[in-house]
Amino acid sequence: MKIGGTAYRTIWLEPDGGRVAIIDQTKLPHRFEIVHLASMEEAARAILTMQVRGAPLIGVTAAYGVALAMRVDASDDALGAAVAFLAKQRPTAVNLRWALEEMRRHLHPIAPKDRAAAAFDHAARLADDDVAMCKAIGVHGLEIIREIAGRKAPGEPVNVLTHCNAGWLACVDWGTATSPIYHAHDAGIALHVWVDETRPRNQGAALTAFELGSHGVPHTLIVDNAGGHLMQRGEVDLVIVGTDRVTATGDVANKIGTYLKALAAKDTGVPFYVTLPQSTIDWTLEDGFSIPIEERSQDEVLKLSGRTADGAVHLFDIAPEGCRAANPAFDVTPARLVTGLITERGICAATREGLVGLYPERGAAA
Amino acid sequence: MKIGGTAYRTIWLEPDGGRVAIIDQTKLPHRFEIVHLASMEEAARAILTMQVRGAPLIGVTAAYGVALAMRVDASDDALGAAVAFLAKQRPTAVNLRWALEEMRRHLHPIAPKDRAAAAFDHAARLADDDVAMCKAIGVHGLEIIREIAGRKAPGEPVNVLTHCNAGWLACVDWGTATSPIYHAHDAGIALHVWVDETRPRNQGAALTAFELGSHGVPHTLIVDNAGGHLMQRGEVDLVIVGTDRVTATGDVANKIGTYLKALAAKDTGVPFYVTLPQSTIDWTLEDGFSIPIEERSQDEVLKLSGRTADGAVHLFDIAPEGCRAANPAFDVTPARLVTGLITERGICAATREGLVGLYPERGAAA
Repeated sequence: MKIGGTAYRTIWLEPDGGRVAIIDQTKLPHRFEIVHLASMEEAARAILTMQVRGAPLIGVTAAYGVALAMRVDASDDALGAAVAFLAKQRPTAVNLRWALEEMRRHLHPIAPKDRAAAAFDHAARLADDDVAMCKAIGVHGLEIIREIAGRKAPGEPVNVLTHCNAGWLACVDWGTATSPIYHAHDAGIALHVWVDETRPRNQGAALTAFELGSHGVPHTLIVDNAGGHLMQRGEVDLVIVGTDRVTATGDVANKIGTYLKALAAKDTGVPFYVTLPQSTIDWTLEDGFSIPIEERSQDEVLKLSGRTADGAVHLFDIAPEGCRAANPAFDVTPARLVTGLITERGICAATREGLVGLYPERGAAA
Repeated sequence: MKIGGTAYRTIWLEPDGGRVAIIDQTKLPHRFEIVHLASMEEAARAILTMQVRGAPLIGVTAAYGVALAMRVDASDDALGAAVAFLAKQRPTAVNLRWALEEMRRHLHPIAPKDRAAAAFDHAARLADDDVAMCKAIGVHGLEIIREIAGRKAPGEPVNVLTHCNAGWLACVDWGTATSPIYHAHDAGIALHVWVDETRPRNQGAALTAFELGSHGVPHTLIVDNAGGHLMQRGEVDLVIVGTDRVTATGDVANKIGTYLKALAAKDTGVPFYVTLPQSTIDWTLEDGFSIPIEERSQDEVLKLSGRTADGAVHLFDIAPEGCRAANPAFDVTPARLVTGLITERGICAATREGLVGLYPERGAAA
């Protein structure tokens, strides 16, 4: 999508072929900075420090991380070590493991001397696949928004609430949760997005508000506490969120606080949809509560990045000195609270039957 | 309660009799500053800018505001004007209107020449009454915590979650939601408090964490998004919150986000209690959704106060430039989600029958 009139993806190989470029998302919305990754270790660090975040983008970054590793040492041992090292940077992200396994599967039969080139090609292929997948999610999700718009008075916008950033900044392009929004906006449907700030890392304020604003989609930032109230007052027509992992039974692990919005949607009769590429489905899991939840640094709660009046960006302390914080990064929304799952293949119920209906090749495994 | 070893109330008349002292709560937790109010206008401004906040403290501050006005002009007209002017500073706070009506009722029969002195005496009486009321709430609430502690393994703490600051900083002393906590802690019951940060004004991080830390109560700061997850995982035994207004039928208006925690508590079987002095009950209202919800400045969402490494306190921009925000300050938790109301007279169901059982003098009015 566009930033300042220029079309970007979130990750690309520089024309010199030696460096992988990313947008440093920890600097947004204050500064727009391109960072170059020249080694597997730099790719791992970009994942760990959340310069890149979002399940699909993490996966593609890890794939390029494998490619960067293969350029240094393309042996079987190095391939295994790269996959293991990159996988442990974000334990909750199933897409990370999926992309790494895909790279291993693809590269293992290839002779070491050809592996580095093949790895860069395959990482680029995964990036292109993600763009196509996100586009398909948007085309399916658009129909839900179009149907709601059809019940509204002319010109009255469809109000969508989203949590965190499952936007194009989380993917390679289009986004997952934002793809139906961008498709609806581009189709001329009047809509307005309530953007959850998404503490503690403020991905809603820093990224979703930034990217919607860059694309020209009307939106309003709200604190995470406000969504339930807005739903009670009829000011939300639809919730769309992304996910980091969906079980085979439709339980949804997503950014901390998603569960609270799903409860409010259920209580107020607002449809609650989850967008995902199939790589996010963990077919091995029956129960969302068995998903390990990453506990991140308390500094993410105690400190926040902001601009002073002179434009300087600081990390500042917002809690009393000596205060301790807990920081679970995800929660699990039980399938019973989810209206539907929007995937690249279509929309289904958040149930095993629903998922197998879209992915019948998985039905035999059930 | 104590700050740095010294016992404070949140508001007091200085020994010179001419100035009302308050703690500037907008400066906490970064700086502890006493501010003096020398006029009704300064009292009104302290309420509007939330140097004082919390239903009981707002009421007492407004009472002192009337006293300060009476010292300038003690006529009937000036009394009426002071009550009207102070009442409009925070439209949602029923306690503000209650305290002002109480001042008017008390002062109206008194000759103008004696009104200023009588007003200061009566404001002090309201402050003392609030301390006694909060203490009684704590004594009743203590029994709930004691009962939960009795079911725990020895030494295993009772985990209480609270939202916003219904602490002693919101009252004159003890607090409402925190009074059972302080009473349990002082009674030697092991407990631990999950402190919701409470965006956008961060009263949990800035005030509740500050006051619990000052009193030595174990606590952990969490973002507002985290409480549902902690309840799902069995890490919360009890939610206790305050309220700005309770209807005669038990609906609860409180800080934005309270509704989301009540939903999670209901979904996970965690008891959800609301503490209140009787002045917070609006006997004229049947339906919480008829309570007007204050929409506050978007700057509270877009900017945040914090310390840089050198100790300087700044107001930072945390959203993209040009971003718009909405800022509803309260939400309504329907009575069906409330386990019980803890008042100075005891504990009751969040129903008309429950409330009239504790306040039978109101039964005739039903």
